Amino acid sequence: MSERPALTVARTVKDLRWQVFAWRAEGLRVGLVPTMGALHEGHLSLVRLALESADRVVVSLFVNPAQFAPTEDFASYPRGEDRDREMLAEAGCHLLYAPDATEIYPPGFSTTVTVGGVSAPLEGERRPQFFGGVATVVTKLFNQVAPDVAVFGEKDYQQLQVIRRLVRDLDLPVQIIGAPTRRAEDGLALSSRNAYLSADERVVAGKLNVIMAQMARSVAAGGAVITAEAMAADALRAAGFDSIDYIEVRHAEDLSTLGPGPIGDSPARVLAAVKIGKTRLIDNIAV
Amino acid sequence: MSERPALTVARTVKDLRWQVFAWRAEGLRVGLVPTMGALHEGHLSLVRLALESADRVVVSLFVNPAQFAPTEDFASYPRGEDRDREMLAEAGCHLLYAPDATEIYPPGFSTTVTVGGVSAPLEGERRPQFFGGVATVVTKLFNQVAPDVAVFGEKDYQQLQVIRRLVRDLDLPVQIIGAPTRRAEDGLALSSRNAYLSADERVVAGKLNVIMAQMARSVAAGGAVITAEAMAADALRAAGFDSIDYIEVRHAEDLSTLGPGPIGDSPARVLAAVKIGKTRLIDNIAV
Repeated sequence: MSERPALTVARTVKDLRWQVFAWRAEGLRVGLVPTMGALHEGHLSLVRLALESADRVVVSLFVNPAQFAPTEDFASYPRGEDRDREMLAEAGCHLLYAPDATEIYPPGFSTTVTVGGVSAPLEGERRPQFFGGVATVVTKLFNQVAPDVAVFGEKDYQQLQVIRRLVRDLDLPVQIIGAPTRRAEDGLALSSRNAYLSADERVVAGKLNVIMAQMARSVAAGGAVITAEAMAADALRAAGFDSIDYIEVRHAEDLSTLGPGPIGDSPARVLAAVKIGKTRLIDNIAV
Repeated sequence: MSERPALTVARTVKDLRWQVFAWRAEGLRVGLVPTMGALHEGHLSLVRLALESADRVVVSLFVNPAQFAPTEDFASYPRGEDRDREMLAEAGCHLLYAPDATEIYPPGFSTTVTVGGVSAPLEGERRPQFFGGVATVVTKLFNQVAPDVAVFGEKDYQQLQVIRRLVRDLDLPVQIIGAPTRRAEDGLALSSRNAYLSADERVVAGKLNVIMAQMARSVAAGGAVITAEAMAADALRAAGFDSIDYIEVRHAEDLSTLGPGPIGDSPARVLAAVKIGKTRLIDNIAV
């Protein structure tokens, strides 16, 4: 017999709450890791981090239509629940919560949670409905699961900051933990969307993190933000990226702009979104 | 010694949660009655109703700046916490939660909860920021207090329906109870804003409910909505009301329009907003 716990699957809020209620009655702490499935080692590292802070870990799997624009990849987003379940059981997850869309958005649904400020620039500019969709579904997941702690990857750094703001602003009784980004050997951040890359594109993709690290070192050494951003953009184009949505140095918490000169004492983060062919990649690193 | 419990006052989320946590540890059920203070018998009836469903009742007192437009009566809204406290203790309330504005909206606050659909017509048209302000602060209060049950007056009928929608849509784990409107002898709904009325205006105000009741009877008897609405508007003007924001028959749950003919089997509600001098009054009754 394996030591790992059996993986329960809940499809409804009712079943989910019944299980969490039973855990609570035993005095157990509950952790939540929200995902859109298509799990990889990055997600499993979130599960393992959650297990350090909670006795029981719920992973939610919901490809949220509200955070995709009509032109985006909702229909083609990678899905494979059987494999996800095996990986979660192996990682020690206790419950997979995989509702369908009508369980999350029943007829008549008409409420939106909007986080201003930190959600406005970068991804917010390029994907106008993204953070509204995220904030609404995360508020619902928190209310459905009622976790003590929730783990989000730093890979989606702006999302993590939006959720921290959301939790503070709405007094959601949950502790948010940001988990370090897991990377391939060449530094490419693990992402479900990496599955879209051809072999040649995959080689180019690996240079993103290298260029961002150079940029972070330059800014940390007192270099001007405007110069570092321009040089990084040039380097990306030379490396073979087809387009650059942004590559910027921002304040690490509220994501306000820094520069054009040196950042001084400001906590800072380099954030980038680029395209290779049809695939859009995002990444970020601390300065 | 009086039998009534001592009234505790909490000014911060931390103090509030400490008290509620202690009650929960004893297995007690907690009820919440959100108010803007300036309490009257109507509010106390909500407290007594909450006491029927909960072991401990929290009344929140917060005049929420976010739900007043700049032209509205935020600054002059009646306030008197000492009297409110006496009335609450007498009614059996256990805890008054009276935060100041920076406790509810700390620096950097930037999240908004928006309920579409049911919040759009009637009050939503006349007071565009009202329900956004209400939905956001009520979500916060629910997350701060974590009540088992919350009581709202039917006096603010559209608000009650907006909150029911909000609770369903965001999966807030709280039961909503609507409390019947308390009325003066002539039928005028009790309201903190009645304090603005002169003696002459008070006489006119008492006719609102009479006209609405006639309208409801006419529609219930199969009369056409369009006729009932027109006759009621004429009657209000004849009775001395200075202006009519609306007097309408609406679907009782989603507040969609009914008519112009008879309502058939639809659950229906008559809702009205009128002005006497500078004072705006709202009321509603079941058909």
